[in-house]
Amino acid sequence: MARTVGVLGGGQLGRMLAEAANLLEIKVIFLDAGDFSPAKQVANHRDHIDGSFKDAAAVKKLAARSDVVTIEIEHVNTETLEQISSEGADVQPHWRTIRTIQDKYLQKGHLHSHNVATAESVPLDASVQDLEQASEKLGLPFMLKSRKDAYDGKGNFPVKSKDDFKLALDALSNKDLYAERWANFKMELAVMVVKTKDQVLSFPTVETIHENSVCKLTYAPARGVSAAINEEAQELARKAVACFEGKGVFGVEMFLLEDDTLLVNEIAPRPHNSGHYTIEACPVSQYEAHLRAVLDLPLFAEDLQLREPAIMLNILGGDSPDSHTQFAAEALKHRRTKVHLYGKGSAKKGRKMGHITVTAPTMSEAESLIQPMINYADKDKPKASSLSSIAPLKLVDKQNYLVAVVMGSDSDLSVLRPGLAILEQFGVPYTARITSAHRTPTLMAEYASSASSKGIKCIIAAAGGAAHLPGMTAAYTALPVIGVPVKPTIGDGMDSLLSIVNMPRGVPVGTMGVNNSTNAALFAVRILGASDEELRGKYEEYMRNSEKEVREKDRRMLEMGADAYAEKFMVKK
Amino acid sequence: MARTVGVLGGGQLGRMLAEAANLLEIKVIFLDAGDFSPAKQVANHRDHIDGSFKDAAAVKKLAARSDVVTIEIEHVNTETLEQISSEGADVQPHWRTIRTIQDKYLQKGHLHSHNVATAESVPLDASVQDLEQASEKLGLPFMLKSRKDAYDGKGNFPVKSKDDFKLALDALSNKDLYAERWANFKMELAVMVVKTKDQVLSFPTVETIHENSVCKLTYAPARGVSAAINEEAQELARKAVACFEGKGVFGVEMFLLEDDTLLVNEIAPRPHNSGHYTIEACPVSQYEAHLRAVLDLPLFAEDLQLREPAIMLNILGGDSPDSHTQFAAEALKHRRTKVHLYGKGSAKKGRKMGHITVTAPTMSEAESLIQPMINYADKDKPKASSLSSIAPLKLVDKQNYLVAVVMGSDSDLSVLRPGLAILEQFGVPYTARITSAHRTPTLMAEYASSASSKGIKCIIAAAGGAAHLPGMTAAYTALPVIGVPVKPTIGDGMDSLLSIVNMPRGVPVGTMGVNNSTNAALFAVRILGASDEELRGKYEEYMRNSEKEVREKDRRMLEMGADAYAEKFMVKK
Repeated sequence: MARTVGVLGGGQLGRMLAEAANLLEIKVIFLDAGDFSPAKQVANHRDHIDGSFKDAAAVKKLAARSDVVTIEIEHVNTETLEQISSEGADVQPHWRTIRTIQDKYLQKGHLHSHNVATAESVPLDASVQDLEQASEKLGLPFMLKSRKDAYDGKGNFPVKSKDDFKLALDALSNKDLYAERWANFKMELAVMVVKTKDQVLSFPTVETIHENSVCKLTYAPARGVSAAINEEAQELARKAVACFEGKGVFGVEMFLLEDDTLLVNEIAPRPHNSGHYTIEACPVSQYEAHLRAVLDLPLFAEDLQLREPAIMLNILGGDSPDSHTQFAAEALKHRRTKVHLYGKGSAKKGRKMGHITVTAPTMSEAESLIQPMINYADKDKPKASSLSSIAPLKLVDKQNYLVAVVMGSDSDLSVLRPGLAILEQFGVPYTARITSAHRTPTLMAEYASSASSKGIKCIIAAAGGAAHLPGMTAAYTALPVIGVPVKPTIGDGMDSLLSIVNMPRGVPVGTMGVNNSTNAALFAVRILGASDEELRGKYEEYMRNSEKEVREKDRRMLEMGADAYAEKFMVKK
Repeated sequence: MARTVGVLGGGQLGRMLAEAANLLEIKVIFLDAGDFSPAKQVANHRDHIDGSFKDAAAVKKLAARSDVVTIEIEHVNTETLEQISSEGADVQPHWRTIRTIQDKYLQKGHLHSHNVATAESVPLDASVQDLEQASEKLGLPFMLKSRKDAYDGKGNFPVKSKDDFKLALDALSNKDLYAERWANFKMELAVMVVKTKDQVLSFPTVETIHENSVCKLTYAPARGVSAAINEEAQELARKAVACFEGKGVFGVEMFLLEDDTLLVNEIAPRPHNSGHYTIEACPVSQYEAHLRAVLDLPLFAEDLQLREPAIMLNILGGDSPDSHTQFAAEALKHRRTKVHLYGKGSAKKGRKMGHITVTAPTMSEAESLIQPMINYADKDKPKASSLSSIAPLKLVDKQNYLVAVVMGSDSDLSVLRPGLAILEQFGVPYTARITSAHRTPTLMAEYASSASSKGIKCIIAAAGGAAHLPGMTAAYTALPVIGVPVKPTIGDGMDSLLSIVNMPRGVPVGTMGVNNSTNAALFAVRILGASDEELRGKYEEYMRNSEKEVREKDRRMLEMGADAYAEKFMVKK
């Protein structure tokens, strides 16, 4: 691609950036200490610079060798970036953006002034009196934070009561501080945003799980979050990034509060830990997106969509220097794991040494794939939670059902049970619910409307008499709805059948025979199997077994003759 | 992972091997000319060797620095490998394997002696008399081939008639030759096989398209090939590789003959062009699989499964030295493309300079994604085919329909047309067929049985009266079948409806209202949409539009009053 990118820093983010650049023959020069920092290990040429990314002379040397200068860490000297920019260097994102973002108090102020929802912040001097004033304004608890050079929870102190004032100031002494309103969040979300010369695009909304303030896990997409909130979070993230100058990827960390509103927590003006999953999970990774953005190469919204659900687990350094390679060796013992080690040499306790990504057709499958690795990561953890007692409760819906079986009344359950048994036989995760079209119309509507965003792929609806549930459910969802007419106590069920099958043009229901929940479940398996070869294989086996069974009966009837057969096997009518 | 892999050769295969190794902190040392060959560019350390992989001293130096020695090209000196093995080096795959495979005549003989189906081969001296004898044994046409150092069709000469004898010998002079029976194949397939210390595993069967004897495209999985043949090809490939010693990945190229039998064409004892797609399409790529195999790291059959269908297109050098970067720049203008350039510097005409991979939830989507890149590759191609006139005809079913609409009689077509219009409106590729359960029972059975292997996801079946087609179709396939009862000339269609809906337990048909093909098509879209977010989005838009339309009518009726509305808009009954 014939242009050269200079990068301040050469850690794991730089390494993964270089891996993306190699594919496009984009030369990347790193300014970092040593000849073999993680990023330099994977980009072999003679133009890397051995030095500190805080050293103005080294940065100028980098700029002289590069067409674009960018960063993989925001704790750089923005005065130097300002100077090289004024001398004609193309710095991305803009040095003003980096300067504003690296001071968290300025960052929040900037977001606030652009009407981006974020936690209220109060500047202060390092005095008990100031904390007193902050607590009056923000209430207790609040967060005391360093304005600069903070990451992975370092530089943050939760102030729970007035007794903590002194403690907090001691912990964060010698730093410029500010206070932030406590966000009572139920979940932490993150979105990677790409700012190109003329667009602001976003990757999907992911869920991040932090432990001891360090990112541990990323779930893409966020679990149990509605499509509306997923979209809203992306919009908020794009809005937040749009108010900064320059090009590149930005990591936007957000809180989802108890009332489902969103707050921006922090922005990183560079690739981010919460975007590692994009390497395997999206057509274009956050690293390639960054390169495309700073080099004005094309990029499409669709390039950033999920190919499959993904989970990323960080490999943190343990007690021994080879704890991370031991972790990697353990991970390789499990199927479908993708290990990324960062080439950092000996492990240091708690340091990010690598990560593992799993992808799968469904989130629940990804969850079972990653579980052994989470267990390994947690092996030395005390059984009682080591999290701070004021850490907010996580309230995630972990269902991941593929089929919802809804009935208008619990009296329909006995008809549905043979169908539920079929779903179990095929290992299809399902949920059974009572959502009456007539007695709980709102619940029914809500349930049907949100089913697809919960990952449900197909709905079986049973109803009798004036059987409205299948049709009404179909009216509220784009998913395939399978209708099971239930025979009422009066009549043969033809009323139920016709109420379900004779839907108006525009709103189809796939109708089964009266009381035939077996076929409804089998039809659901066929629908899932249309895009799941393994399940289709199981179904084909089911068909072969069923054929075998009938052939066996035929053989017997041939051997015994029809009369003896009837005598032996048939229930007399 | 603490072990070092030494590689003879340092081209694109070595480069992609190094990319996989970097993720696992596996050090790879390349023996190749220069300091910055494609592979060395992405592995920055001081232990690479600048030299020829045919130079014994250099190979020994490599072995001294490595825990395992492997190859990225088979045209190496196996005497040297034999010697270092005898001195204790771990060479993978075994030098005998490389020696046998690098001589194609020995390779075929070896396969033949292990009962692996392959084209009959005859050794010969370079004389017209020998060719005469070969033609008597093999018939005409036959292939004259160099035994060694041949690749990408170089060293092969198709002998069509006796007039070609002299021509062929002149073209392949100074080479050891053999003759091979002409394989009248309808398709070329390939399977990457991984031989570990105790297992032989395979990636899926792919379809390869060659142009001028160079691989141009790879389709994973092979299109229009039944699950049985896909499995059979993998079995044959595993059987072929199992008869060689040592560990690593092997590329097995095969012919699918007109009668659906398979022949092994050639084996490569290393990663292969037809396996590039695995980087994006499988949990573990062929490169990582090779590393895991030679280093005795764990590997699972599931690691080699397809995450999504994928297509790989080679970027071959064109007329200008930057033709490949121009190609890459063009590719980036299209959504969801993954570009791999190999760092080979200036392009040479016809040289492999890079490749492009697209993945998508369905093969037909992947095909539309890659099409602009194929057009670009073909831009300078003369309109008339430049292929040799005796190149075998390719007979691949290129349909990739997602929905099959079947009817018992052409008289049902008028009922189905509104449904077909819906499928067109949603851009769902469909095929409409007449397969009567009563008049063409065999065709109906064949069509239904093979539908899923053709990539069809859902079948709409329409029938009237004693309406057997939907149920019989469901009996022959595991795909979801949607039934449309057609109203016969006599009666209201209740006979058709009940014939379709009242299927026995075990064989479901999703039944629509009488003549309601619109709903059948909409239901098919819902089924496809269950695993295709884009299509589901379209469907949701359809629902919103339909709501808008009714609201608009409601507004009008409110404004005009019901009488005026009826007067103006209603057809009088």
